[in-house]
Amino acid sequence: MKVLILGAAGMIGRKLLESIARDGTLGGKRVDEAVLSDVVLPAVPAGLPFACSASQDDLPAPGVVERLIGGRPDVIIHLAAIVSGEAEADFDKGYRINLEGTQRLFDAIRLAHGASRPGEGYFPRVIFSSSIAVFGAPFPDRIGDEFFTTPLTSYGTQKAIGELLLADYSRRGFFDGIGIRLPTIAIRPGKPNKAASGFFSGILREPLNGQEAVLPVSDQVRHWFASPRSAVGFLHHAAAIDTSRLGARRNLNMPGLSATVAEEIEALRRAAGDKAVALIRRESDPVIEKIVAGWARDFDTTRALSLGFTADRDMDAIVEAYIDEELGGKRPQF
Amino acid sequence: MKVLILGAAGMIGRKLLESIARDGTLGGKRVDEAVLSDVVLPAVPAGLPFACSASQDDLPAPGVVERLIGGRPDVIIHLAAIVSGEAEADFDKGYRINLEGTQRLFDAIRLAHGASRPGEGYFPRVIFSSSIAVFGAPFPDRIGDEFFTTPLTSYGTQKAIGELLLADYSRRGFFDGIGIRLPTIAIRPGKPNKAASGFFSGILREPLNGQEAVLPVSDQVRHWFASPRSAVGFLHHAAAIDTSRLGARRNLNMPGLSATVAEEIEALRRAAGDKAVALIRRESDPVIEKIVAGWARDFDTTRALSLGFTADRDMDAIVEAYIDEELGGKRPQF
Ligand SMILES: NC(=O)c1ccc[n+]([C@@H]2O[C@H](COP(=O)([O-])OP(=O)(O)OC[C@H]3O[C@@H](n4cnc5c(N)ncnc54)[C@H](O)[C@@H]3O)[C@@H](O)[C@H]2O)c1
Ligand SMILES: NC(=O)c1ccc[n+]([C@@H]2O[C@H](COP(=O)([O-])OP(=O)(O)OC[C@H]3O[C@@H](n4cnc5c(N)ncnc54)[C@H](O)[C@@H]3O)[C@@H](O)[C@H]2O)c1
Repeated sequence: MKVLILGAAGMIGRKLLESIARDGTLGGKRVDEAVLSDVVLPAVPAGLPFACSASQDDLPAPGVVERLIGGRPDVIIHLAAIVSGEAEADFDKGYRINLEGTQRLFDAIRLAHGASRPGEGYFPRVIFSSSIAVFGAPFPDRIGDEFFTTPLTSYGTQKAIGELLLADYSRRGFFDGIGIRLPTIAIRPGKPNKAASGFFSGILREPLNGQEAVLPVSDQVRHWFASPRSAVGFLHHAAAIDTSRLGARRNLNMPGLSATVAEEIEALRRAAGDKAVALIRRESDPVIEKIVAGWARDFDTTRALSLGFTADRDMDAIVEAYIDEELGGKRPQF
Repeated sequence: MKVLILGAAGMIGRKLLESIARDGTLGGKRVDEAVLSDVVLPAVPAGLPFACSASQDDLPAPGVVERLIGGRPDVIIHLAAIVSGEAEADFDKGYRINLEGTQRLFDAIRLAHGASRPGEGYFPRVIFSSSIAVFGAPFPDRIGDEFFTTPLTSYGTQKAIGELLLADYSRRGFFDGIGIRLPTIAIRPGKPNKAASGFFSGILREPLNGQEAVLPVSDQVRHWFASPRSAVGFLHHAAAIDTSRLGARRNLNMPGLSATVAEEIEALRRAAGDKAVALIRRESDPVIEKIVAGWARDFDTTRALSLGFTADRDMDAIVEAYIDEELGGKRPQF
């Protein structure tokens, strides 16, 4: 099987490749070749158990998707995007990458499909990473599987449009698409970034690394999480699932964990003790408080669960995943 | 006030112009100029109480929307579209007119807005005619205001995307948009067409004109209707409404009438007698039965009603509107 990963230099893309490399499979199927693409040249790790190439590509630039689809990948995992804050700050850039890039990708697949003889048509599995940003407040305490999409950011709008295109192109038989709406991924590895949601990861990650973290909101703030490990698991499952079980409704809220900041802190305490917790400095920020108040807190993901998607058991599992993957399994000692 | 009507040669566009002409107002405000645009050159009726010009334009063609927006209309009523059947039969044409055309229009307004000095920005009201085709079966018996959009046609997909763009461009302050999801318009005047929904109008219109009509489905089929008169009323109200009452949720299910085929027939009987009803020939068509089984039957439109949109009282009002507007107020005699 040949796999194309778009946005492969990103956080989830890199974790996905690591996980495919572990036993050479994606969704239980043997991978023969992985093609990596990103506007930042993706690193090709040494010693992979399959062929792997990487290219530096601006997704919506002329010819890019045609070249990538020309290689006829069996599974296409579309992770390339600019995130919420940047898409809000730069209107043209967000629409160009998140909408036009996605549209061009889907169209290149459609045209490749059409070029084939009937019954022999090119018909890849396409996995689209959507987001809970397709929802906008006000919403119910738990958002159900049939709640409407009224995004309050351009990023969320672009993801919602990508979902609609994915469903229509799948319905028409151009490809076999599935859209997965990821929860906020925590603990995001690496350096703190400026995303308004950054503290959800930061208050765990920084103390686990012996550093101070700032908490700008109240302990009672509730949000919706999945670990990078779960996100990678969703992608494996989305690659393997029998999409006839989806019918025409190809976009799914992924399962996750609804937890408060206080619950994060208690999980940190269990994993690393009071001294780690003492590294969290409370410094309330009304701007961030306000943004976060408009975010989804909880979901009823009956549909995805019944389709076999699984998420983190509790906040301890989310902390554990970070310690395993980023700290070599070693709990920090203070 | 200057009004631009896109798709002005269509059924609703012509009825809208007639109604604006009646007392020279749209949504209670005086119209000084109407600009009509359509790929079929719109007729300019004689004796209008305001300036009126018309041009033959292919909406997504280069330069078209820029020229039309260059005239800085205060209200833009976007009715141009190819309908469901054609967008399904011709994938490229549907996406080109219904999606790309809409996107280009919104972008031309955005760029015109941006070209203005702050506080003096060009900021028109934009009314987008969407459709209940944004919904796809299975759905509840009554679709509520927060039900999700899972279209089962490319046309419905294109309308749902137009709605998302309208909401995002409005949220960012480029224009003041409102999307109205029209019920199936009946009685559609003119000749029978090949739309699968055509019989809903045909079984009333043909007998009212002394002609035979074919009914391809059972009497118990239920659907969601509004008269052309109501549709025009929605547009007037959408032009006048205080959009701050909409918040970020700019797209609304319009009110309508949920009625069965049997109820249509009884209204015909009341208006034109048994001889008119006898002109309906039952000839069941399993293909049409199947298509229609996937259509929405009823809506709970609390939100639009509370915002002051109003629809037809009953099926008699729908028949009455046709007799008034198309038969010069004369009930047919048999
Ligand atoms: N991390 C989360 O919390 C989260 C939540 C919901 C959805 N998602 C979505 O999942 C996907 C992956 O998330 P991530 O956390 O790995 O994000 P990331 O930002 O780490 O990775 C995205 C990648 O896309 C690449 N990219 C940006 N512009 C590009 C262009 N013009 N051409 C090609 N590539 C381009 C970036 O270089 C980056 O490597 C994204 O689509 C994101 O929107 C992430
Ligand atoms: N009539 C209904 O039952 C109904 C229901 C829901 C939504 N709508 C929507 O309401 C709007 C008006 O409906 P209608 O019944 O008057 O439809 P219509 O088909 O009578 O009018 C649409 C007009 O758009 C024009 N058009 C098509 N392609 C064009 C192009 N490339 N450039 C410019 N103009 C183009 C057509 O020439 C036509 O005059 C449409 O957007 C339709 O999708 C109608």
